[in-house]
Amino acid sequence: MKRILFFAAAFLLPLAAFAQQAIFFSEGVSSPQINPDRSVTFRIHAPKAVKVEVTGDCIASDSGGWGRAELAEGKDGVWSLTTGPLEPELYSYAFVVDGLQMLDPSNVFLMRDVRSLMNIFIIPGGRGDLYNVCPGPHGTVSKVWYDSPALGMQRRMTVYTPAGYEDSGSRRYPVLYLLHGMGGDEDAWVTLGRAAQILDNLIAGGRAEPMIVVMPNGNAGLPSAPGEGPEGLYQPMTRPMKTMEGSYEAAFMDIVKYVDSHYRTVKKKSGRAIAGLSMGGFHSFHISKQYENTFDYVGLFSAAVRNPEQGTGGVYSDFDAKMARQFENGLKLYYIAIGKDDFLYEENVKLRSYLDEHGYPYEYVESDGGHIWRNWRVYLTDFAERLFR
Amino acid sequence: MKRILFFAAAFLLPLAAFAQQAIFFSEGVSSPQINPDRSVTFRIHAPKAVKVEVTGDCIASDSGGWGRAELAEGKDGVWSLTTGPLEPELYSYAFVVDGLQMLDPSNVFLMRDVRSLMNIFIIPGGRGDLYNVCPGPHGTVSKVWYDSPALGMQRRMTVYTPAGYEDSGSRRYPVLYLLHGMGGDEDAWVTLGRAAQILDNLIAGGRAEPMIVVMPNGNAGLPSAPGEGPEGLYQPMTRPMKTMEGSYEAAFMDIVKYVDSHYRTVKKKSGRAIAGLSMGGFHSFHISKQYENTFDYVGLFSAAVRNPEQGTGGVYSDFDAKMARQFENGLKLYYIAIGKDDFLYEENVKLRSYLDEHGYPYEYVESDGGHIWRNWRVYLTDFAERLFR
Repeated sequence: MKRILFFAAAFLLPLAAFAQQAIFFSEGVSSPQINPDRSVTFRIHAPKAVKVEVTGDCIASDSGGWGRAELAEGKDGVWSLTTGPLEPELYSYAFVVDGLQMLDPSNVFLMRDVRSLMNIFIIPGGRGDLYNVCPGPHGTVSKVWYDSPALGMQRRMTVYTPAGYEDSGSRRYPVLYLLHGMGGDEDAWVTLGRAAQILDNLIAGGRAEPMIVVMPNGNAGLPSAPGEGPEGLYQPMTRPMKTMEGSYEAAFMDIVKYVDSHYRTVKKKSGRAIAGLSMGGFHSFHISKQYENTFDYVGLFSAAVRNPEQGTGGVYSDFDAKMARQFENGLKLYYIAIGKDDFLYEENVKLRSYLDEHGYPYEYVESDGGHIWRNWRVYLTDFAERLFR
Repeated sequence: MKRILFFAAAFLLPLAAFAQQAIFFSEGVSSPQINPDRSVTFRIHAPKAVKVEVTGDCIASDSGGWGRAELAEGKDGVWSLTTGPLEPELYSYAFVVDGLQMLDPSNVFLMRDVRSLMNIFIIPGGRGDLYNVCPGPHGTVSKVWYDSPALGMQRRMTVYTPAGYEDSGSRRYPVLYLLHGMGGDEDAWVTLGRAAQILDNLIAGGRAEPMIVVMPNGNAGLPSAPGEGPEGLYQPMTRPMKTMEGSYEAAFMDIVKYVDSHYRTVKKKSGRAIAGLSMGGFHSFHISKQYENTFDYVGLFSAAVRNPEQGTGGVYSDFDAKMARQFENGLKLYYIAIGKDDFLYEENVKLRSYLDEHGYPYEYVESDGGHIWRNWRVYLTDFAERLFR
């Protein structure tokens, strides 16, 4: 045993040596520290700094966006701030040191939203528990390349198969196609959206049916998320993306075809749902009416649903007729959710007026807040609970 | 078309609004910029800074580790530095602004090594091309939870299946079990190690056989990488890890059993390789002799191979007898690779002496450099090319 300990000790040397070169943490600073009263303490060792702030959605602001608060300098150059108690939730933040925004050197957990990296933490309890990994069984998350003849390229997508999928013999599963917003990609729903954790938790708790969740890349000009394709490590939003000009919607059945031929799916309308946020809501809206007998469940989260009269060509043509066919065929759930402060709120008012005028049934959920991931995680939870039952 | 453009323009507003809150990039700064002569320009907008440095393995240092160089302040508070031409390679770096280490606000690409986050870039050509995503077909990378009865928990691992696996009917594939080092986890080989890109490129170029690569978590006390298990978002290296005390090696056949029953594998010795870096080399060393007729290929990369006399109990017991049985049974390749400056170099000299004394055949590769991922990517490439042919 002594010799084993000796050996382990030998290992600490290079770690320490490495720490002197590249380490971002250490110095004994713990940040963020989640306190028993659900407050959070932020800390950073910045002995030369003149002003240190934290900015994030965990700091109140008049606009409802990211607030900003100053940390106080303590001994040994460690700055700190303790918030008030926070509601259970996944929060994002960053530090601002003498005007320069930077990640928390003590927190390795972060997310990328379009071109921004931000640290995250989770206040447990309630909704927060839904975003943490559950103690129960977990689904598999795969990064899969599929062929899209219509777009002429191999494309990357994320596929979630629920716990037990691999061991369930010939059992078939329904599929939720879950689409991201502008600037997002096939990684967004499983990072910012915590989709795998939400589904794991809902399914483990009997709150949702076991389902496959397919998260494709909605930028028809690109094969994959930045850095995950042959274009190399490029800055997000600097490539021609082809987002809302019809190509993606027109090519969508390439995805359904791939999924139906590579997974044990329920290959019919009653086994298919499509939902998306913002631009992904726009895509879900047009895809579900274009392939009017393909999806029994449609979810529009803060959707960029254009004014119905704006349809122009391709999948956007024959708007009224396609809508009519979709609702004549019937579907089990047409779900619309948006926040009161969302900049797309009026667009959704117009959409609902259109549906009301034509007598097309839908369910409507209005939440607080704006065009933010916090809402989209809640909408996904609510929507997933209503599917395939 | 005009209305589509109008609609797209409406989208830029919230992105811009968001940018004022959380964005780390922008200000027109491009960094890192790879220049045609393979030099790199680093830039950061830090108008209040007094001193700005870049530290990384792309900056020369006397120690062979991360060097450090000062950026010069230009107009509008943008600091910059252009390196000399660099060899094709994947490089890591960070900025140091007035003594505070931080990530490059203009570069969203980064890797976590144990507790450190660092930015990365790739100089293309030669070896660099092997680490970029190829234009050809790509394998699937999955995060899978398997049951380990021996460790009494569900555990997470990364599985790479080569391009075409899903469409190859009943074809069976050999498996490389690829193990990480101390402080690492099931994510390390596909992030720091670029294992999926290396295998995609080698297989697409006909340089390696199509194979499955299984990357488990070698910390027997933990179910998964930090943040990916039910323990929540904890600081790496702050949990009891159980790394080199025999539990992991003793439970290893749980992994092989799961893989052989859930993937179309070649279920025999000739279809199995095991390799690892540092602690993963230690694990590969002991696992391959404990299950002495299971692996035809063994790779020890900068391996923490203890002095043979140090075996104590469990899988470490009966050292000489197990080694004898392993080599009597025969195996196709026993591969040892290490850098001249590695702190484990002498351990490996002792191992080679032991093998030589007993007449056990092996192949030995000695490289420049020390205990670093740059070497492990090279060893993986070299090893993978020799497997299953």
